Amino acid sequence: MRNLTEENLTDAVLASLAACGDARLKDVMTSLFRHLHAFVREIEPTPEEWFAGIRFLTETGKMCDDKRQEFILLSDTWGVSMLVDAINNRKQAGATESSVLGPFYVDGAPEKNTGADLAPDEGPGVTVRGKVRTPDGRPLANATLDVWQTAPNGLYHMQDAGQDEYHLCGKVRTAADGSYRFRTLKPVSYSIPTDGTVGKWLGWVGRHPYRPAHIHFIVSAPGCRPVVTQLFTEGDAYLESDAVFAVKNSLVVKYEPAGGEWTVDHDFVLEPAVA
Amino acid sequence: MRNLTEENLTDAVLASLAACGDARLKDVMTSLFRHLHAFVREIEPTPEEWFAGIRFLTETGKMCDDKRQEFILLSDTWGVSMLVDAINNRKQAGATESSVLGPFYVDGAPEKNTGADLAPDEGPGVTVRGKVRTPDGRPLANATLDVWQTAPNGLYHMQDAGQDEYHLCGKVRTAADGSYRFRTLKPVSYSIPTDGTVGKWLGWVGRHPYRPAHIHFIVSAPGCRPVVTQLFTEGDAYLESDAVFAVKNSLVVKYEPAGGEWTVDHDFVLEPAVA
Repeated sequence: MRNLTEENLTDAVLASLAACGDARLKDVMTSLFRHLHAFVREIEPTPEEWFAGIRFLTETGKMCDDKRQEFILLSDTWGVSMLVDAINNRKQAGATESSVLGPFYVDGAPEKNTGADLAPDEGPGVTVRGKVRTPDGRPLANATLDVWQTAPNGLYHMQDAGQDEYHLCGKVRTAADGSYRFRTLKPVSYSIPTDGTVGKWLGWVGRHPYRPAHIHFIVSAPGCRPVVTQLFTEGDAYLESDAVFAVKNSLVVKYEPAGGEWTVDHDFVLEPAVA
Repeated sequence: MRNLTEENLTDAVLASLAACGDARLKDVMTSLFRHLHAFVREIEPTPEEWFAGIRFLTETGKMCDDKRQEFILLSDTWGVSMLVDAINNRKQAGATESSVLGPFYVDGAPEKNTGADLAPDEGPGVTVRGKVRTPDGRPLANATLDVWQTAPNGLYHMQDAGQDEYHLCGKVRTAADGSYRFRTLKPVSYSIPTDGTVGKWLGWVGRHPYRPAHIHFIVSAPGCRPVVTQLFTEGDAYLESDAVFAVKNSLVVKYEPAGGEWTVDHDFVLEPAVA
């Protein structure tokens, strides 16, 4: 651990983990050191580039508060969140596919029965309806659909002083036959926040900050593996270039016109919980 | 860029850089995405582990202010700073080897002539002396040794309200014959700050936070390539386990007793500036 050179430095850093008593942490750090050092060896950053990286990470941390998580946004826009999501949600065919949680979920939305209106006195609205069921078609009574989405201005309730807490959010329960139904506003495509490091970085690499319109869900039921997912709007301009790589074909739904509003029909399929 | 799976997600993220007009940034991000995704694929983090990583980065950012740079400390303790240093300081034999700048350098120390005392009325002191010269032995007049170090309590001036600004710091000039001489305090081994995420992490992996005693230098001269380096104290208990991997044999110096104080003799050798 002395007189280290380009040749032997990485080995010394790996050896410094010898006394780590947490086997999992040791594996994680060994892999991280190998890949991080390999990245540095590959790009050979100048001291100025290295410090630009330090500053970028620092500013990203400074953007975070109880309502803003810039590192999650970074993970999302770098495809890391969807990769972690894919790895943790290998599913049997037919089960509802997962998508990213995103940085705008707040637990604690009000409990609602099926048929609830999440946007009373607002419109035009959409009625979302269907069943929560198992892959073999068994309806799941008393399942919960924890729902959240942006308002028509593209902002979530906690981003916007003009919205009540948990505006357009709710925990909707299924009925005895596994059916659910709720009314909300038709979601809009929107820009992720661009006033932080992630927005700057998107500009540097020539990417736009838009997400296709979507409604977020965490669907859970007793005895089943919950799914964190999103329903996207067919025809949205950003389905092919989502800033966070989250669109899956099976999660794109059609908004059917119905009396000046819309209806969406979609079933959620939950696998049995892992024993 | 739609319906992405574990198999094709990394390719889609790499393809998203297509419009990046900055060729160097595109290369950096391509390498970073490859290594970061490979790391995630290798360790398969749970959502909880992923979020622990997000929290760790966030807290690291929150620790940073104008006097504290926790991300540099992280880079130092992960061997990244020394790797960047090694890559950027491939030298001809005989030239003074480099070492990390560290997070405690502040430009603007007072200018001093050779013979200056950086610690008047404090002791026991050490007189550091020698020449600044080229690899072929030509003395470098008017070279600058920008010096900084901790006080006997192990703290740098900006970490410690009890010290004057630039305490134990100075920009010492060489004389016409390339010689330099200054008096300072004998440095002590010390702990890097442990009240932040880096200190927590060192504890998790079973590493100590100590650095062997050293004096920092940036040595520069007209027409020469400057060197950022440190002089370590022979016999120090932490030479073999420096928390930031910075010790090189050629930078370990002997403190010779001299009238109740010490002397250190060391020449700094600067290469010609790269054209």
